[in-house]
Amino acid sequence: MLTEAQRDCLEVVLVSPRNPLNIGAAARAMANFGFHRLSVVAPFAPTWREARSAVGTPELLLSAIESATLAEAVAGCTLVVGTGTLTCRKPEQKVVPLPDLAPLMARELAQGSRIALVYGSEKHGLTRDDLSLCHILVEIPTDPGQPSMNLGQAVAVCLYELATRAFPSPEAPPAEGASLIPPATSAATSGHLDLLAEVIEETMRAAGYSPKSMQAANRHDLRLLLRRLALSTRDVRRILGLFRRILWRLNAPQ
Amino acid sequence: MLTEAQRDCLEVVLVSPRNPLNIGAAARAMANFGFHRLSVVAPFAPTWREARSAVGTPELLLSAIESATLAEAVAGCTLVVGTGTLTCRKPEQKVVPLPDLAPLMARELAQGSRIALVYGSEKHGLTRDDLSLCHILVEIPTDPGQPSMNLGQAVAVCLYELATRAFPSPEAPPAEGASLIPPATSAATSGHLDLLAEVIEETMRAAGYSPKSMQAANRHDLRLLLRRLALSTRDVRRILGLFRRILWRLNAPQ
Repeated sequence: MLTEAQRDCLEVVLVSPRNPLNIGAAARAMANFGFHRLSVVAPFAPTWREARSAVGTPELLLSAIESATLAEAVAGCTLVVGTGTLTCRKPEQKVVPLPDLAPLMARELAQGSRIALVYGSEKHGLTRDDLSLCHILVEIPTDPGQPSMNLGQAVAVCLYELATRAFPSPEAPPAEGASLIPPATSAATSGHLDLLAEVIEETMRAAGYSPKSMQAANRHDLRLLLRRLALSTRDVRRILGLFRRILWRLNAPQ
Repeated sequence: MLTEAQRDCLEVVLVSPRNPLNIGAAARAMANFGFHRLSVVAPFAPTWREARSAVGTPELLLSAIESATLAEAVAGCTLVVGTGTLTCRKPEQKVVPLPDLAPLMARELAQGSRIALVYGSEKHGLTRDDLSLCHILVEIPTDPGQPSMNLGQAVAVCLYELATRAFPSPEAPPAEGASLIPPATSAATSGHLDLLAEVIEETMRAAGYSPKSMQAANRHDLRLLLRRLALSTRDVRRILGLFRRILWRLNAPQ
């Protein structure tokens, strides 16, 4: 049983889901394991309408937050965890098998992190662009003969694992394991990092750093880099201050 | 990744499933986690037809075994694990939370057990009669506000847990924990126990042991008792021999 505060620490994000039954199943799994923060990014309108009007729709689906972009949905989170089958891709982030995720998350939660668990659309999973917003990726260990899981079932499996093993009971000692974010600072949210990335990109452009053809690739690499650094809010403030200053100088009339 | 021998040790049994989508989802979860033995007990005919004719039906659903009764479906198994929400019932068997099941099962598997994981129908779960065929019950820890899980999701969660934690890699040492069945004997199958129960019941009737009104209740208690005893095949042979002898004497003309 999770406490009220624990329930609030985890947000489930569905990016462009296509099947109303899957949306309902994801919401039901959340209710089963005691979570209630659901965000849906750019849902297909008829799908979204149908999912919310189904009989027995859980309350949390009716109060789900709709966002236009993943960046917007996870802006308030300090740890963004992408999910999916990674057989055909070579991800740039650390990939954690689901059974190893709980001790890691327990440490983050003990530091007051707010965590997003992000699922891509049924057909394509998370895009390269979505992945660039994730700090780490989690993989459910499945059989190579049938690696790809149904969305509702994948959500159920992840939430079972986390509800059971990532949220320590009040009396239990904190879990062992390396932290992703250094302690004793407040971790930067995804929104902070995006703001920082924007200012740095603007600086790159203003400085003529990269040709136009390279700008998308650079943006991607920059996002990943900023997430790997595990910045605190104070770090972000400092770096932002620096880049704004540089930018002001670059844009000042000569 | 499970070995071929490990895949064979676990059978999933669906009792009277009503929704073809749930049957498909259960089969898909089995394929995801590398299992392939599926039994379906007394399926509703149109449901069963529809589930097997869906696009992309996994091979294991086409080769699923259909049985008229649960007793028949689990006849070859040495450990029958019932699943479900137990909030409204007071089960007579040991109830194991899913996160504690793996070490227990790992020990059973090391002794060559064949295990059945049994799911009741979506509406009612396992009946009292079904439950009397189970050695233990497993419960997925869910939120009291929404305890009941969707069938396909419940199968996915259980198989994830067991595939990940109950099947030790060949090089790993066997898991710690108490065994349900004493080692160094071959455990009696559910079919053996049913045969034994039948002969004992016949003896009860022949001996005028219980009034007609009590016979159903006695049958139920007898099944549970036999399962709690963790009998070996040799035990079963001996007890059978004894009861057959008694029965012969009871039925012999005076």
